[in-house]
Amino acid sequence: MRLDICFVPGDFQAQAYQAYTAVVLDILRATSSITTAFANDCHALVPVTSVTEAWEYKQQQPQVLLAGERQGQCITGFDLGNSPFEYTRPKVAGQTIVMTTTNGTKALTAAASCRNVYIGSFLNAAYLCQQLADEQEDIVIVCAGTEGRFSLEDALCAGLIADRLSRFYALSDTALAAQAMYRGAQHDLNACIGASSHARYLESIGFAADIEYCLRHDCLAIVPYFAQGIIRV
Amino acid sequence: MRLDICFVPGDFQAQAYQAYTAVVLDILRATSSITTAFANDCHALVPVTSVTEAWEYKQQQPQVLLAGERQGQCITGFDLGNSPFEYTRPKVAGQTIVMTTTNGTKALTAAASCRNVYIGSFLNAAYLCQQLADEQEDIVIVCAGTEGRFSLEDALCAGLIADRLSRFYALSDTALAAQAMYRGAQHDLNACIGASSHARYLESIGFAADIEYCLRHDCLAIVPYFAQGIIRV
Repeated sequence: MRLDICFVPGDFQAQAYQAYTAVVLDILRATSSITTAFANDCHALVPVTSVTEAWEYKQQQPQVLLAGERQGQCITGFDLGNSPFEYTRPKVAGQTIVMTTTNGTKALTAAASCRNVYIGSFLNAAYLCQQLADEQEDIVIVCAGTEGRFSLEDALCAGLIADRLSRFYALSDTALAAQAMYRGAQHDLNACIGASSHARYLESIGFAADIEYCLRHDCLAIVPYFAQGIIRV
Repeated sequence: MRLDICFVPGDFQAQAYQAYTAVVLDILRATSSITTAFANDCHALVPVTSVTEAWEYKQQQPQVLLAGERQGQCITGFDLGNSPFEYTRPKVAGQTIVMTTTNGTKALTAAASCRNVYIGSFLNAAYLCQQLADEQEDIVIVCAGTEGRFSLEDALCAGLIADRLSRFYALSDTALAAQAMYRGAQHDLNACIGASSHARYLESIGFAADIEYCLRHDCLAIVPYFAQGIIRV
């Protein structure tokens, strides 16, 4: 079985990966927040591309919560931003959330043609790897990146997954690279990711605690999946 | 000062890097062979895009040597392939070589608009890093990749350079990633690169010794540079 990694959504070729299981990563912060929402019993989450689309959804179904960010900040009039600390049990349990984020939504949309699409993060990495190892399908990890560019934190989480599955899978060149990257950074992961452009930006707008939380390993034992336009668990 | 890395030539934006010094890497094998050629007193090397262009050059200047590869193999009628072992002193000393390779030539052409363009490899990494540290210019490392895709060996050599210069430079996200990658793989570099798709292909067509040679560190004390369409030292 093969394990491949797309460092940016632009590398994802839908045709080549139709029979693969996709794992979508947007560590800072969309897929970390989504995983947290489902750990707190969110009912369903609908990713949409634009703010307008989110408002149109709410017009049809007024009970949904609107969530997401632009430039890392909560969107005016929305119920939730993109910080995992907002996705608490009192706020999200039993709720349907409509979410639009800069990078995560695009990666999900790109991966939608795959056989299965899972939501990954450092938070649920152990449980996700167990499930992937059990299923024995070819895997492609799609990193959301930052505005189309390489994102260090996504590549490092992809490297953690590749490293853990390397006994069972033939790793592509990008997977070998990400594995080496994770091995080189794992003993000082917070400092390494803290030096990245996106982490420094989030810190500058007051979200340093989010970064620390999103880098915690293996604390949530769920794997949200994306099918027919909706994320569930 | 900044140090950035383009993992594939497609990431290189000429406009953004005009004031930078570029380092072009095509470890297996173009820039390793070019460095070897100049260590053996090659006079000049002219990279061209196509086989036709190489033949046209030779019609104008019959004394030049034609060099290069397609699918890793020497081109019919050419004097030299792309193996560094062919670029011996008896063959190349004092000669002008016209070279066309699948990936290396494209990366050179992309980087040509930069302030300076240097040829890098594991072979001349120490001398190159010393020169870069002395010059104190912003740096962009352009990995040749393999047919437009990510190439493990190029990224790892870029990571070695980023690691050695990290005290003097602000590393971009890709540079931080490549540094971590090199640190994770350096103790078993030959095995890591040996598992890559391009190394396995070269091994399958009989060039295993080339791979071992191209991964030797710091044995050639020269830095070829590319200007006005010609590489010199």
